[in-house]
Amino acid sequence: MHIKKQRLLTPGPTPLLPKALHAMMDSDVHHRTDDFRKVYSAVLRDLKELMGTANDVLVLVSSGSGAMEAAVQNTLSAGDKVVVCTAGKFGERWVELARAYSLNTVVVEAPYGAAVSPEQLDAALTPDVKAVLIQASESSTGSMHDLEAMGRLVKQTSAIFIVDAITGLGTMPLDIDGWGLDIVVGGSQKAFMVPPGIAFLSISKKAWAMGETSTLPRFYFNLKKELKNALNGESAWTPATSLMFAMAEALTYIKSLGMPKLIENAQLLARATRAAATALGLELFSSAPGNALTAIQAPSGIDSGVIIKEFRNRFGSIIANGQGSMKGQIFRIAHLGYFDFVDLFGMVAELELILAANGHPVEFGKGVAAVQRVYAEVALPRAAALAIS
Amino acid sequence: MHIKKQRLLTPGPTPLLPKALHAMMDSDVHHRTDDFRKVYSAVLRDLKELMGTANDVLVLVSSGSGAMEAAVQNTLSAGDKVVVCTAGKFGERWVELARAYSLNTVVVEAPYGAAVSPEQLDAALTPDVKAVLIQASESSTGSMHDLEAMGRLVKQTSAIFIVDAITGLGTMPLDIDGWGLDIVVGGSQKAFMVPPGIAFLSISKKAWAMGETSTLPRFYFNLKKELKNALNGESAWTPATSLMFAMAEALTYIKSLGMPKLIENAQLLARATRAAATALGLELFSSAPGNALTAIQAPSGIDSGVIIKEFRNRFGSIIANGQGSMKGQIFRIAHLGYFDFVDLFGMVAELELILAANGHPVEFGKGVAAVQRVYAEVALPRAAALAIS
Repeated sequence: MHIKKQRLLTPGPTPLLPKALHAMMDSDVHHRTDDFRKVYSAVLRDLKELMGTANDVLVLVSSGSGAMEAAVQNTLSAGDKVVVCTAGKFGERWVELARAYSLNTVVVEAPYGAAVSPEQLDAALTPDVKAVLIQASESSTGSMHDLEAMGRLVKQTSAIFIVDAITGLGTMPLDIDGWGLDIVVGGSQKAFMVPPGIAFLSISKKAWAMGETSTLPRFYFNLKKELKNALNGESAWTPATSLMFAMAEALTYIKSLGMPKLIENAQLLARATRAAATALGLELFSSAPGNALTAIQAPSGIDSGVIIKEFRNRFGSIIANGQGSMKGQIFRIAHLGYFDFVDLFGMVAELELILAANGHPVEFGKGVAAVQRVYAEVALPRAAALAIS
Repeated sequence: MHIKKQRLLTPGPTPLLPKALHAMMDSDVHHRTDDFRKVYSAVLRDLKELMGTANDVLVLVSSGSGAMEAAVQNTLSAGDKVVVCTAGKFGERWVELARAYSLNTVVVEAPYGAAVSPEQLDAALTPDVKAVLIQASESSTGSMHDLEAMGRLVKQTSAIFIVDAITGLGTMPLDIDGWGLDIVVGGSQKAFMVPPGIAFLSISKKAWAMGETSTLPRFYFNLKKELKNALNGESAWTPATSLMFAMAEALTYIKSLGMPKLIENAQLLARATRAAATALGLELFSSAPGNALTAIQAPSGIDSGVIIKEFRNRFGSIIANGQGSMKGQIFRIAHLGYFDFVDLFGMVAELELILAANGHPVEFGKGVAAVQRVYAEVALPRAAALAIS
């Protein structure tokens, strides 16, 4: 055994921003004081600015799934007809959640690795539909949905559009107000570079209005109560103070980088990863690949679990396997949040060695070179980039 | 600007062991208590075990240079004749130090990039020499000295052998007792993976004996006083408690890895770096390269300062420039301590892009492949390694 640094490289939790981690040590503070109100208000304000919406933005102490539940609980009533667009494990989570609340759930499905088309949604969007539930980025398969086109359809109806953008925020452009995304859910442990434990969501006027007649039971996830408290810089319940300090620091970093650059960063790494996979003779899993992560099919004869295990055992790198029936078939290289090109150089060099160790023919450095070419195209002087084959 | 993670990749301070860093948060403790004595004693015991010596081992709150001074102050007297073997900036530090204490200083020199030969030392080793001062690893040039052969020479005389092994410990085998290394100096911020602020040294019976007649002035660096206190698990002065907690954690990690593996880790990374440099058509600076770091000559027409700056500006990687007259000529890739192959994949991929950006012809991935081949040779199954060109 030589030195192997543990590197957390999964699509959530994602690598942590060191400054955000360090800020957690400042959390020896009471949450009903002005000191904390300042931090809490800054988080709400910065999230709103980075999400680019005029809608209300609220923070919850929960994982993203809690905010998904909050979105349903606070807007709908038992028996309401909802359309769930699903193309993977997270779409299926919406289905389970909707059924848990006895909603009349219409499932519009695309196979794993594909995206639900706007046409599919259109066909299901009858006038009695109260809500459409979907993922921006389906992180079990690496696919992304065309929310702009879908939003256009939903906007024309009385239904609200509830979007799980937990891995979508910070990895793809989301024009929340322009596209009519009524509720958009995010989580701290994704592109926001801090540990799990904080979720957040934006709520449109249309969603608030539907909430007025909603009768689903709710207690902890009470968005009206949260809104009332948020106006005073407070949370309804005891907030996760340490995570809030981390969020404040991470949001400051993301603002300094700029949300478009954060998104472009994921886009570039995704593009470079696709190029590397192709150079190594590997197949992508998604036909509608997004930027949060890239799902790559294990070469035939190699279980992707072996690849994951080799990443960890040989190099200390924690990489995501497939979920559910995709387990063993695919592995997922993440790009969302605090990832850079150097991370990718390392991951691809590791992958080449792992493939070689498992009998897959590999030319060392070929995948890395594909990543370098993408870097060179965008960041090297024109002359230098041209001189290179 | 996209995401660039700051990575400290210099030959000291070196990358920090996360567990050691976290342990610094436990340092809310008083140093004259049993709680702390336990930690302090463990550090002394583990250092002694890892250095592999029966000699006394003491810890000082200072950088390595402080322990170099302590070695001189506590053994010699003004006018004593000492031989300083110098092959770089750190050898020159011994010369300055010896002269600052009015020692009769004989300088045995090798040009930058070379090592002092045992024959050179032999010629200077007259019977009146009281001490020989040298570096195990000369980290300004990346060279290492043949301490085994030199120790054999010094052992036969009444002189003591004082070795600055600040970058030598954990990067090369050092048989302190077998080779007769009377004083061996180390520092926390090198292969020991914690921040700067702690130095340590081993002291042989021969060195203690010489200390009995030493008349050089000393106060803070009083080794006899430190030894007396160390026997009670204490330090003479207030110790750097947080760093001591970090050291305790790092030493536990190094013990679990094993000192031979830590050394082999540096050896492998050094070998892989030399292979990458050669693959990229670059010249090594040292004719006697050690494992702490590899000094590489910048290609003609490129100032190494530009390469350093590009590492930082393009990728956030902090790489060492040359020192003194070597500044601008060389850059130094470090291997000592908490470095792994993935760090090196990244550094070499970065270097390739930087060379390309500055007009040096590069085939992307070629240097990375050279590193991968070294990994494959030692860590891939034989069949897989053979199948790869």
